[in-house]
Amino acid sequence: MNGVIHGVGLGPGDPDLMSVRADRLVRGSKHIAFFRKLGRKGRARSIVNGMLREDVIEFAMEYPVTTEIPLSDPRYNEALSGFYEDCKTHLCALSATGEDVVVLCEGDPFFYGSFMHLFTRLQATCDVQVVPAITGMSAAWNASGVPITWGDDILSTVMGTLDEATLTDAMTRADALVVMKIGRNLPKVRRALANAGKSDRAVLVEYASMEGQTVRPLSEFTSETLPYFSIILVHGQGRRP
Amino acid sequence: MNGVIHGVGLGPGDPDLMSVRADRLVRGSKHIAFFRKLGRKGRARSIVNGMLREDVIEFAMEYPVTTEIPLSDPRYNEALSGFYEDCKTHLCALSATGEDVVVLCEGDPFFYGSFMHLFTRLQATCDVQVVPAITGMSAAWNASGVPITWGDDILSTVMGTLDEATLTDAMTRADALVVMKIGRNLPKVRRALANAGKSDRAVLVEYASMEGQTVRPLSEFTSETLPYFSIILVHGQGRRP
Repeated sequence: MNGVIHGVGLGPGDPDLMSVRADRLVRGSKHIAFFRKLGRKGRARSIVNGMLREDVIEFAMEYPVTTEIPLSDPRYNEALSGFYEDCKTHLCALSATGEDVVVLCEGDPFFYGSFMHLFTRLQATCDVQVVPAITGMSAAWNASGVPITWGDDILSTVMGTLDEATLTDAMTRADALVVMKIGRNLPKVRRALANAGKSDRAVLVEYASMEGQTVRPLSEFTSETLPYFSIILVHGQGRRP
Repeated sequence: MNGVIHGVGLGPGDPDLMSVRADRLVRGSKHIAFFRKLGRKGRARSIVNGMLREDVIEFAMEYPVTTEIPLSDPRYNEALSGFYEDCKTHLCALSATGEDVVVLCEGDPFFYGSFMHLFTRLQATCDVQVVPAITGMSAAWNASGVPITWGDDILSTVMGTLDEATLTDAMTRADALVVMKIGRNLPKVRRALANAGKSDRAVLVEYASMEGQTVRPLSEFTSETLPYFSIILVHGQGRRP
């Protein structure tokens, strides 16, 4: 019997916000695997600190490249594609020996997650099961203390990596807005928010549900770049009795 | 000392997908409150079957109206507004006696939730704390077995209650799409999906993460109406290495 590969969503960062199922799988698993940037401890791995079995066997999957090569460069896709293939081979081999493996995933595995690239490769040959999780954006609007959507509000989730015109258009049309993957795209995101007439309502949430969580109007934040775990929200203003 | 009113997101329906924090609060609470349709057991209440303290005191908040009066009728808003005020008064009185209360919320409390209408009224006078949760849409894309968003995909979440032109426009522009609040709006939602050229990719998920979960192409479903817990997805097709 082959083992099961579990893609387990850990949620936004606070271990208390993991699902009961995720908590049980993480604590019980002999084999865990997780992505990390070369030379780092790994964010997913950090979330489960103190939760793992004493005899746990860890498999760190280290990205060969993150932001060193632009996305548009064909070498980026080549490097990543080879990397995911290697990870797949390792995990399938483990599974073939009958061992279950828990792959630790930040946020929800099927929502802009790295695990998806592994999932599509594993699916054909292995038994893969995915545990959904609380998204980073849910933690962000929770941290903001204000509901994100009301009545018939349209919520759009956009990535700061999009071009300014596309961002402006999407921001203009959305009633409620979530912006992710901001980082060095912050100046462009600011311009698009201004073009869309939504700068005044934009709220910046950093490290939602984690140590160091901050919430403030974007207008009060003056730096040109943001840490990875930052989300900008514009709350909907729809119907409410 | 006043008690705390906890707005606790229960997630999509499977108790195993509740957060560790929600699970602890639900099991430990002497007072629980929940919304339900008059004469029904209540969906949120059903999720926690078998989890409650033996001495639990339950407060059922019964909507005076759901779909009997159209949203556009001023009597709808009046009835709902009075109802939320009454619920607030009851919960604040409980809190004033020093008792904590757990308000059971389906899905994520700040994402199109009824609790938000209570929250805005409680906030001024009570200590309210909200626990985020896995959304119904996360459970739906998890059930579909296909990741919802890739790379720079724009995800739009739209309500079937919107008019056809607005739906068509939002559906045309989104890379990935979630449609909620469908019910009797299904024929209109179908037309909008067709107008947007996305009918072929639309997937219908009923009762995600719950008993009776089904996943099928929308084109294979021929009825004119859908049960409450139904979500239509159009998966993104963005960049992937």
